[in-house]
Amino acid sequence: MGDTESIDNLLALEALLQVTFHDRALLLRAVTHHSCCTETAVRDSYDTLEFLGDAIISAHVVEHIYRSFPNATEGDMTVLKSEVVSRRVFAAIGQHLGLFPFIRVDVANLRTFNERSRDSLCADVLEAIVGAIHIDQGPDAARDFVARVILPVVAQVSLQTDTNPKGRLQKIVLQRTGTLPRYRVLEQGGRNNDRVFLVGVYEKDFLLGTGRASSIKEAGRIAARDALETLRQKHSE
Amino acid sequence: MGDTESIDNLLALEALLQVTFHDRALLLRAVTHHSCCTETAVRDSYDTLEFLGDAIISAHVVEHIYRSFPNATEGDMTVLKSEVVSRRVFAAIGQHLGLFPFIRVDVANLRTFNERSRDSLCADVLEAIVGAIHIDQGPDAARDFVARVILPVVAQVSLQTDTNPKGRLQKIVLQRTGTLPRYRVLEQGGRNNDRVFLVGVYEKDFLLGTGRASSIKEAGRIAARDALETLRQKHSE
Repeated sequence: MGDTESIDNLLALEALLQVTFHDRALLLRAVTHHSCCTETAVRDSYDTLEFLGDAIISAHVVEHIYRSFPNATEGDMTVLKSEVVSRRVFAAIGQHLGLFPFIRVDVANLRTFNERSRDSLCADVLEAIVGAIHIDQGPDAARDFVARVILPVVAQVSLQTDTNPKGRLQKIVLQRTGTLPRYRVLEQGGRNNDRVFLVGVYEKDFLLGTGRASSIKEAGRIAARDALETLRQKHSE
Repeated sequence: MGDTESIDNLLALEALLQVTFHDRALLLRAVTHHSCCTETAVRDSYDTLEFLGDAIISAHVVEHIYRSFPNATEGDMTVLKSEVVSRRVFAAIGQHLGLFPFIRVDVANLRTFNERSRDSLCADVLEAIVGAIHIDQGPDAARDFVARVILPVVAQVSLQTDTNPKGRLQKIVLQRTGTLPRYRVLEQGGRNNDRVFLVGVYEKDFLLGTGRASSIKEAGRIAARDALETLRQKHSE
């Protein structure tokens, strides 16, 4: 990418994001996959900005859930948060926003490249852009961007959230194999009032999903959700 | 707890926190364990404030790590963040701050109550207080509180973080059983550039720990850390 082309691209991206950066190098980094700079990835790729953006988005999503659902339990909030703060949802938002054409990736350096890679890159870059806005423009600008671009999906996702993942998984596994899913406690950590259980759910001998929570019941529900996601991905392969 | 006593307590707690609340009911909720209000726990206990506070603290810790360690990789940052944002560290901070005497808990309603329960309550309430400050005083006040009370531990923890958990685990397991720890991939999720591996580490047939990451190597290191934590807890039992 030539320098002029690169600057034109960044200006177009700023217009798309409705944010004007003080330091455009930071925005450039937010759209740069490490395949483009294998030698200098730590400083020049989006990886650490993505890590920062993820934490910032999570905090805003949790606050939004806290304020929007005053009667929800902590368990309900945890489920909704994990549905929203997910690769799948972020990929959809990033694709819809039109981030893909701005992402700098060296496709020849990747093992595979397909629709799912595009999704994955869009999810990463959405997070990295939030990180970059936070560093370049401050917390209020990042909050505004998240409120405008990401929070609107919370209400949508909350309507779709499956409240009975174990029931749904049972139906699917029965249909596939004629057997029932089996749940097993794989690990018990912590003690007394602070226990953590890791539960796995199996279709025959195959571990379909795992979940970790402070009760076996909740860990089982999370494992069932994880298994449903596994099956969804297999199905779309 | 009488009403006057309750208000005196809250004033003392405000002095301790160096924060004056607009709505003291929110502060009261932040120190109330659900054992005190089993019927109305959703509205009156700290559970959802704790959930909010955890997300806010995480974002500030990640930002602090991002700014303090500009040459760290995303993997390094993930490890340090998970060491800081942990029950153990939050319990130590909460105990050191002196939160315990202010926590409202109905000990008779708990299965067990011991030093570890105190730790756990202090960790919960520290998070809940951050959530309450955020809601009552706004994001800047929450940021200041986290910067004052929590962020100073990041540098300390970073000095103690174990960079070779697999080596350390191997030594301990060899000493305990004369066998080497065995690592197994328990689950492979995602596809192509977006893989997730769940790795388990075993001492003989006993699953000591698990880790999830985008590479088998990183998942193994996380599993080793998890196993070291399991052994640490067993040892202190």
